[in-house]
Amino acid sequence: MQPPPAAVGMRLEEVDTPALILDLAALEGNLRRMVEAVGDRVRLRPHAKTHKCPEIARRQIAAGAVGVCCQKVSEAEAMVEGGIADVLVTNEIVGARKLERLAALARRARIGVLADHAQNVRDLQAAAARAGARLDVYLELEVGMRRCGVAPGAPALALAREIAAAPNLRFAGLHAYHGRAQHIRAQAERRAAIAAAAAAVRSTRAMLEEAGLDCPIVTGAGTGTFAFEAETGAWDEIQPGSYVFMDWDYAKNEWAPPLPRFEHALFVLATVMSRPDARTAIVDAGLKASSVDSGMPAVWERPGLAYTRAADEHGWVEAAPGAEAPAIGEKILLVPGHCDPTVNLYDWYVCVRDGAVEALWPIAARGALA
Amino acid sequence: MQPPPAAVGMRLEEVDTPALILDLAALEGNLRRMVEAVGDRVRLRPHAKTHKCPEIARRQIAAGAVGVCCQKVSEAEAMVEGGIADVLVTNEIVGARKLERLAALARRARIGVLADHAQNVRDLQAAAARAGARLDVYLELEVGMRRCGVAPGAPALALAREIAAAPNLRFAGLHAYHGRAQHIRAQAERRAAIAAAAAAVRSTRAMLEEAGLDCPIVTGAGTGTFAFEAETGAWDEIQPGSYVFMDWDYAKNEWAPPLPRFEHALFVLATVMSRPDARTAIVDAGLKASSVDSGMPAVWERPGLAYTRAADEHGWVEAAPGAEAPAIGEKILLVPGHCDPTVNLYDWYVCVRDGAVEALWPIAARGALA
Repeated sequence: MQPPPAAVGMRLEEVDTPALILDLAALEGNLRRMVEAVGDRVRLRPHAKTHKCPEIARRQIAAGAVGVCCQKVSEAEAMVEGGIADVLVTNEIVGARKLERLAALARRARIGVLADHAQNVRDLQAAAARAGARLDVYLELEVGMRRCGVAPGAPALALAREIAAAPNLRFAGLHAYHGRAQHIRAQAERRAAIAAAAAAVRSTRAMLEEAGLDCPIVTGAGTGTFAFEAETGAWDEIQPGSYVFMDWDYAKNEWAPPLPRFEHALFVLATVMSRPDARTAIVDAGLKASSVDSGMPAVWERPGLAYTRAADEHGWVEAAPGAEAPAIGEKILLVPGHCDPTVNLYDWYVCVRDGAVEALWPIAARGALA
Repeated sequence: MQPPPAAVGMRLEEVDTPALILDLAALEGNLRRMVEAVGDRVRLRPHAKTHKCPEIARRQIAAGAVGVCCQKVSEAEAMVEGGIADVLVTNEIVGARKLERLAALARRARIGVLADHAQNVRDLQAAAARAGARLDVYLELEVGMRRCGVAPGAPALALAREIAAAPNLRFAGLHAYHGRAQHIRAQAERRAAIAAAAAAVRSTRAMLEEAGLDCPIVTGAGTGTFAFEAETGAWDEIQPGSYVFMDWDYAKNEWAPPLPRFEHALFVLATVMSRPDARTAIVDAGLKASSVDSGMPAVWERPGLAYTRAADEHGWVEAAPGAEAPAIGEKILLVPGHCDPTVNLYDWYVCVRDGAVEALWPIAARGALA
């Protein structure tokens, strides 16, 4: 684990670089906006894969969330270790060692998990029985993500019966997440994608209930669409993750009510280390400091400057015609193109308020791949 | 730091996933091939930014390297901590805290660093003087990378004089690295790019020596071109990094003598967690497990299978027409598109020989951004 790049009380401009900066006022505003937008219509279970940090999960729960989601067993372990009592692993868990860890965790906290195959249900049952534990199992329904999940209709019914019949598993409901809809730029198209997913959810739930299977919760949704899931009435619980930070890729979506306006809360602080010419600055944050899978980071509140290219440890910041690049030694803030993999590169959040470091939060689930 | 996904003595197929697998026989072959290819023509100073691991650096030095390169002060600290006595930081170091750490390190080991600006030379001198240390400073020459560095000719001479005049700095020579040449696909074009860089190196060195400045070492070069730098006679030392592992992007280069044939030594082990249809497998290694900045990873020794798309924690593996995707629970090996940022996602190398885990090496400089 790397030492933190700052100390509490430091001014932002004194923080060593590259550093992952968390604007606490913006974070708190985002937590509040989400709760206000959701109201009592659905339960909120934010996705912790974005932040990987129990300090943030605890604040989400204090603001009204019922628990959190994780994507990996090792992430869930970090959350339970950090005091979170209710974690849904929104993923299929395959492999003896992972199943053993998942079942062991279910003796310490309420743990949910997904399934999309009968053999996996049998493996979950066996692991839970060995541990003397009980797992909430959600059937993952394919609603447009084209990744994991079973098709609506008869395949879903057959698998739900397997889950419901397993003595150490509780059939907890449906997981229906349309990940591909989150970054569709046009809001009307995003809403239409969720309306189509809602039809699949409703017909499957009706089929299960007609077959005598109680379907307690339908859970799913992300930051780009959650208000649409909520308005359909087909979901009971939503799982947005990125709203806490708002990466630059989400800023490229068309964004209007009923989606609230979230603020950018996560930044990479970088230092100019070379100035090859008047309009080009080379900064010390490259693709090991800010993920580039969803495009380059944006330069924050410096009109005329653009981050145009990343090497492993260098970034190119170019000034528009007539403008001058920042000087050697100057620090700039970048907004990551994609927050989740950027957070995974750091060990610490440097939490800032009014220009000063207020706290250092460890990213406990950084590198939690298992 | 995450716990290792394996124990010594385990079979490869028992290793938990995702895991970073290092094939020791392939690694040892690559170390040997580089030494044989280089001979006595140039010194070898491999780049440790690729592996971030003192265990590997020690093997490189045992095989004949004079020391290693790093890209960050914190990486250099991890190397010195791991017993490496001679480290060149191939980068400009800007910022009070980093300069202080660099100078402190120079009291424990031989430390080199680059400079491309007079103010930075003064800052290096001040930091070295405060620490009572001496730094080797190389002038970074711009030879086609279009990143940091000063232009050949008069600007280089002026800066070299500044370095040579600083009492705690030793003018160690020129750093000339043409990073953009490494991945030019056609070998003849790569060779031509290095020939052009060699002309700039020679004329600058001649100018410095005419001005009475001794220029002890010209250092540079990467895995894609090092044999061309060596054949020009303009370089004294080469800095290849990726040759230890050989990522998939290098496999796309045209590759013929004098470049030796290196083997793929680094893999990501992944498990199939879902099978949405007969020709598609979803694996548990996405872009938090294998960097996608230089393209998707390749599927190793499974003809007809391709890794076609990565989400944060999922990968899509698709079978060619007529072929079947691997089954749920099956494990496959992936060759990362780009090794350096992939290594930076892991805490451990799982070192394998003859199908069994022989050692677990910590990636000591993982996340070393400062």
